[in-house]
Amino acid sequence: MGDPCGIGPEIVAAQWLGPQPPHAIVVGDAAVMTRAIEALARVRPEAARLEVLHHEGAWPGAQAMGGEADAPHGRIHVPVWSPPGLPEGLAQLPWGQVDARAGRAAAVCVRAAAQAVMAGQAAAMVTAPLHKEALSAAGEPFPGHTELLQALATPSGQPLVPVRMMLANHELKTVLVSIHISLRQALEAVTFANVLQTIEITHRSLVRMGVAQPRIAVAGLNPHAGEGGLFGSEEIDTIAPAIAAARAQGIHATGPHAPDTVFMRARHADDHPGEFDVVVAMYHDQGLIPVKYLGVAHGVNVTLGLPLVRTSPDHGTAFDLAGKGIADASSMAEAMAVAQQLAGV
Amino acid sequence: MGDPCGIGPEIVAAQWLGPQPPHAIVVGDAAVMTRAIEALARVRPEAARLEVLHHEGAWPGAQAMGGEADAPHGRIHVPVWSPPGLPEGLAQLPWGQVDARAGRAAAVCVRAAAQAVMAGQAAAMVTAPLHKEALSAAGEPFPGHTELLQALATPSGQPLVPVRMMLANHELKTVLVSIHISLRQALEAVTFANVLQTIEITHRSLVRMGVAQPRIAVAGLNPHAGEGGLFGSEEIDTIAPAIAAARAQGIHATGPHAPDTVFMRARHADDHPGEFDVVVAMYHDQGLIPVKYLGVAHGVNVTLGLPLVRTSPDHGTAFDLAGKGIADASSMAEAMAVAQQLAGV
Repeated sequence: MGDPCGIGPEIVAAQWLGPQPPHAIVVGDAAVMTRAIEALARVRPEAARLEVLHHEGAWPGAQAMGGEADAPHGRIHVPVWSPPGLPEGLAQLPWGQVDARAGRAAAVCVRAAAQAVMAGQAAAMVTAPLHKEALSAAGEPFPGHTELLQALATPSGQPLVPVRMMLANHELKTVLVSIHISLRQALEAVTFANVLQTIEITHRSLVRMGVAQPRIAVAGLNPHAGEGGLFGSEEIDTIAPAIAAARAQGIHATGPHAPDTVFMRARHADDHPGEFDVVVAMYHDQGLIPVKYLGVAHGVNVTLGLPLVRTSPDHGTAFDLAGKGIADASSMAEAMAVAQQLAGV
Repeated sequence: MGDPCGIGPEIVAAQWLGPQPPHAIVVGDAAVMTRAIEALARVRPEAARLEVLHHEGAWPGAQAMGGEADAPHGRIHVPVWSPPGLPEGLAQLPWGQVDARAGRAAAVCVRAAAQAVMAGQAAAMVTAPLHKEALSAAGEPFPGHTELLQALATPSGQPLVPVRMMLANHELKTVLVSIHISLRQALEAVTFANVLQTIEITHRSLVRMGVAQPRIAVAGLNPHAGEGGLFGSEEIDTIAPAIAAARAQGIHATGPHAPDTVFMRARHADDHPGEFDVVVAMYHDQGLIPVKYLGVAHGVNVTLGLPLVRTSPDHGTAFDLAGKGIADASSMAEAMAVAQQLAGV
């Protein structure tokens, strides 16, 4: 459900308004989901048909996921599982405010969902937005979902499993060498090991998605990919050797390509078949500027490298919209569709 | 005409094939332009109607520009002025090869055109692509058009006039703080003085283009524009103060905005009115990735800050296509349209 005070609960509930209710269960608080349905119904009258079907205690099993409009009297059941450890009184918290209980609730739900997926009780998880400050107020040592899941997926005493963020929409997929660090630090993160690992994780993940031999374009770091060393040497010293090492493993990686045209070349549209299946971007904005350029409504965030399928919408808690029933639920819908595709279900 | 061995001459000649011949004169070599027309006519039979109308010696005056299909027998005159100093035998040079004579010819034409514009004999200049290596082989100390024009426009003994590159298409305009330097050097170029100067040049230029109070969005440098100093401090230390200084002059500048969404927000499309008139980008690829994302055919490069209007297509000499008559002339057409708009003619 994400942070109970953000738009998460309502964009999750909205998924049950489509022609075919999803084969899924909300991991969250029943009263919070009921409040979200009420908020939705003030703007979309058809949401009045939604009704929480509540499960408590142990994991209720996949049969609780429903997936058809089978409730009596034209009502639609939204199955909700409340895992142990949820704080009380969540549905009384004001919309759009940072609250430690909200952060705690979001974290409890993420852990429970991830454990269900890792135990093979569910095929994939989709995370609604949580709020970093609320998470921090709850005493969680992780800045966001990704780090929390990474720690959860790492056997104790082992180095953290390497993960990468992929942003995807209908036209473009991009995987980032680094994310939430300054551009100055991002330059330092462009190492042989990091670039090679990003290519390897990208390759394995796309193969798992059903692309037999993914065409991976690797972007350069500098303008014109350095123009033969004229505008920077990272392409020659670091990126090209990492591409060569990946190719030696049989991975179809090419580049380093000029950053200003590689995304255009990779773009898949009706009138424009893309040359590549995915672009490995050297830093956050290099990949995110093109993937967001045509709008964020259909962007999906996928964490690659985890031993579980995890996707999320490409936006935050939008506290200013929370509780109004007007938040755009398309990115969440895309995230669910991509999760299904990745999980092969 | 650009480099005689590249696609410049043929994409220039192609401009006379539209419904209304342009009110313009080609500064170039008559035999080179005749060869380009022949190349074009092999693919587009209507180009056989084109015929060079040659002027030599001193500037022939604006009346030589024609602008209507006024030649007898259904032919269309392409007016060409050969300025003094052009090398001999240019039309015998092989297509698609670097040649010092070609570089020399391109430079002679650029200088002659710029001098005509600065003398008020023409309203604007549009430059076809030249080849950096050919220019260098000709002993020219400038890497490209921009630097050559900048030197030409600077009174002797004065510091170079500050210029900035603007890339524009139908949807987006972006002006770059720095261009052809490594990303590492680009970080160093994000200074208070450079950012403020970029905003000022952008403002003055857009006002001259007829935008009364341009809405200038200034991008941040770091992911999420630094997220309050968490991922880099350039926004706080440098970019925000430059924006404040610009606003103190009455310039409508806002930001620093998150780089990954500011271009999407500025995009003007039929179903998407842009929030800004132009985006000031902190480095080459930040601005060029989004402006090229939907294709380069309609991109136009404008040099801001010069005491003359100068635009160019957003592509190079394309030596692999030269002489085949198949190069896409749309970006050149856009460059001419934008030059006309900027010159107010």
